[in-house]
Amino acid sequence: MPTLIHHPLCPHSRFIRLILNEYGVETRLIEERASERRPEFLRLNPAGRTPVLIDDDGLVVAGASVIAEYIDETRGAAAGSGRLMPLDLAERVETRRLVEWFNVKFFDEVSNWLVNEKVYKRYASAENGGGAPDMDVVRVARANVKPHMRYVGYLTGIRKWLAGDRLSYADFAAAAHISCADYLGDAPWDEDESAKHWYQRVKSRPAFRPLLADRAPGMTPGRYYAELDF
Amino acid sequence: MPTLIHHPLCPHSRFIRLILNEYGVETRLIEERASERRPEFLRLNPAGRTPVLIDDDGLVVAGASVIAEYIDETRGAAAGSGRLMPLDLAERVETRRLVEWFNVKFFDEVSNWLVNEKVYKRYASAENGGGAPDMDVVRVARANVKPHMRYVGYLTGIRKWLAGDRLSYADFAAAAHISCADYLGDAPWDEDESAKHWYQRVKSRPAFRPLLADRAPGMTPGRYYAELDF
Repeated sequence: MPTLIHHPLCPHSRFIRLILNEYGVETRLIEERASERRPEFLRLNPAGRTPVLIDDDGLVVAGASVIAEYIDETRGAAAGSGRLMPLDLAERVETRRLVEWFNVKFFDEVSNWLVNEKVYKRYASAENGGGAPDMDVVRVARANVKPHMRYVGYLTGIRKWLAGDRLSYADFAAAAHISCADYLGDAPWDEDESAKHWYQRVKSRPAFRPLLADRAPGMTPGRYYAELDF
Repeated sequence: MPTLIHHPLCPHSRFIRLILNEYGVETRLIEERASERRPEFLRLNPAGRTPVLIDDDGLVVAGASVIAEYIDETRGAAAGSGRLMPLDLAERVETRRLVEWFNVKFFDEVSNWLVNEKVYKRYASAENGGGAPDMDVVRVARANVKPHMRYVGYLTGIRKWLAGDRLSYADFAAAAHISCADYLGDAPWDEDESAKHWYQRVKSRPAFRPLLADRAPGMTPGRYYAELDF
């Protein structure tokens, strides 16, 4: 059984968990607080970030985008018509563009700040930057999330799913990052109807269920976090 | 002929130019100052960043990692043994991990700050954040670059090239980002001998020549920037 080193509120880890769940790959989950920079963890991923996948043969695959490509190359073909990375060249470009959009841009502007201020700082000691969330930072992240919601709404208004006619990595990357904001009560669902309906559809998939059961110690999720009708 | 929308000192653009040069793909280069956020450019890449490739059939491919995968899928096989993305699964994982390392981590910690402070701020109007470089930021970037140099030195001390026995995307991603620091006089070549020798080897490739001829208006490159023996 492969092992995924992750954190329940790390959006990049959630992206990979959604893919593994959708493909029905049973996985051992090990929780890691990357900010503690444990030497054993840094040996697996010198970049010091979750997620890290250790496959059955012992191969260590570090980083969300790298793991996603690796899963496609090892498990994608077996998924048949449910493959999450399209085979058409232009659709691959669009899927990867949107995966990058959420894993890099949305993370830089929204999810990194929210999770760092509201979750990781709670665990860290004072000398490691721990403490109460800086609400100025949280407010900037809350403002930044709105144009992203409208962009999701725009795309899902002209397409069935985020990158085209079929569910793809793009939907799971977007939903993974947005779900962290949602857990923390910072997903503005009144911003865009189409974005909300798209999220309801992604959230209804069985692959999402284990994420809705996640609880970070000492942090109750937002009121509608686990509800499919919100 | 494909078109690449780039900036001469955008490290992500340099990564793609090196790949295209190495593969001998003649490309029309169009310079873009992404920070000006021209509507025509944002229509091509809503993320607002260089590089953007427009292929012969009109397909728009935005973002360095997306373009690199696309070039591999369209031109990689024709390169035969000179293919820059390995075919072996574990080598693909290692190559992508290091591409990500430089395109995301090195960029976040070093090249983004240096290029932003020393290059982009020079073009921008005062109301758009233009002005003299903030030397506190530059000093942090100069401190951050050192462990990266030692990591390159460590890897190239145990391997022929950065990701393994053969030249790969990883070498070009690393060299692209480091070459921007070098242009700006901020590559600490006394930090690690092995890193320096590796860079000399990458820099000696014909693919690198056009980049060594680049000149950003009003900015003379560091003294040894274009010299193969430095």
